[in-house]
Amino acid sequence: MEANISAGKTTILELLAASGADYFIETEPIDVWQNFYGFNVLKSFYENPESNALMFQSLVELTFTKASLKFPQDKPVISERSFETSVKVFMELAYQNRYIKCSEKFLLEEWYEVLKSKFHIEPTHFIYLRVPAEVCFQRMKKREREEENEVVLEYLQKIESLTDDWLLRKKNVSVIDGNRTQEEIKSEVVSIINQIV
Amino acid sequence: MEANISAGKTTILELLAASGADYFIETEPIDVWQNFYGFNVLKSFYENPESNALMFQSLVELTFTKASLKFPQDKPVISERSFETSVKVFMELAYQNRYIKCSEKFLLEEWYEVLKSKFHIEPTHFIYLRVPAEVCFQRMKKREREEENEVVLEYLQKIESLTDDWLLRKKNVSVIDGNRTQEEIKSEVVSIINQIV
Repeated sequence: MEANISAGKTTILELLAASGADYFIETEPIDVWQNFYGFNVLKSFYENPESNALMFQSLVELTFTKASLKFPQDKPVISERSFETSVKVFMELAYQNRYIKCSEKFLLEEWYEVLKSKFHIEPTHFIYLRVPAEVCFQRMKKREREEENEVVLEYLQKIESLTDDWLLRKKNVSVIDGNRTQEEIKSEVVSIINQIV
Repeated sequence: MEANISAGKTTILELLAASGADYFIETEPIDVWQNFYGFNVLKSFYENPESNALMFQSLVELTFTKASLKFPQDKPVISERSFETSVKVFMELAYQNRYIKCSEKFLLEEWYEVLKSKFHIEPTHFIYLRVPAEVCFQRMKKREREEENEVVLEYLQKIESLTDDWLLRKKNVSVIDGNRTQEEIKSEVVSIINQIV
């Protein structure tokens, strides 16, 4: 499940988990990014992205890779974002913002290509919960996650634009209008999952 | 095959290749490190290690991982250094020299652990060509590889010390005295390989 920051992914995934359906739900490991052997790598990234973006991106890739090792074979796996998102959206944005160099971008892309061959890191289908960046920005300000204090609207607008560029041209994607009630969104997600599995 | 910089690994590997024995010989991809999509990552590392050590270490890990994808099943693979060397020696040294942070060291170590499970990156046996750092330093000065201009004797002494710490306590290692003729060393390497395979 793909979406901008604060679009409501976690809430929908919680509703899915509570629905009793037999899904394996993998949420983003924010807690690991906030406490990697005692280091808040997420915070370091937002505070000083020029020095810490490569570290953060590589940690994100590591956590998605490790998560894939736990995926079961016998039930649908629903993952909050994916390894590919980190490459196509967040790494690309880090590059456009000059947080990482061109050579570092190529490095992260090559890692993705190599890891694809051995780990289950490629989603079979994408569900794109589409919420305007402006709405996400208001929600983000409300939830007051400490690390996101410095995030500006323009950052979310760039994520929206990169996610659109990447996902809207894919064939295996369902776009969901996020401007509805949580229950309506959840029902549509369930219906999409049932069509796929 | 493990050894310090300029210990003579490449020469021995070339002699092995020329001997006609049916080995798969993987030399260190210095050319990739010198020209990664047009970037001389090796040079960037030596020139400004504080900014580029994580990039370089990750590229080294990538190239060792990619190399392992080409290893044949039906003949002995002799690799110049290994993924483990990059972690136990060069990454550790980068950390001790404060080129990488503690969190970055943990990151590279975790990548190693994850990749071990899916790629053939662990040698069955190590051949440690042991040459005193002072001798390596003289040889390095003679060969005049551009990127190594700034490397000081102390750097090679630290590599020696870390390699000793790591390899001399292992069980699956043969230590070879590198202060002999190339033909003598080659013969001993062949004899070791024949005992293993």
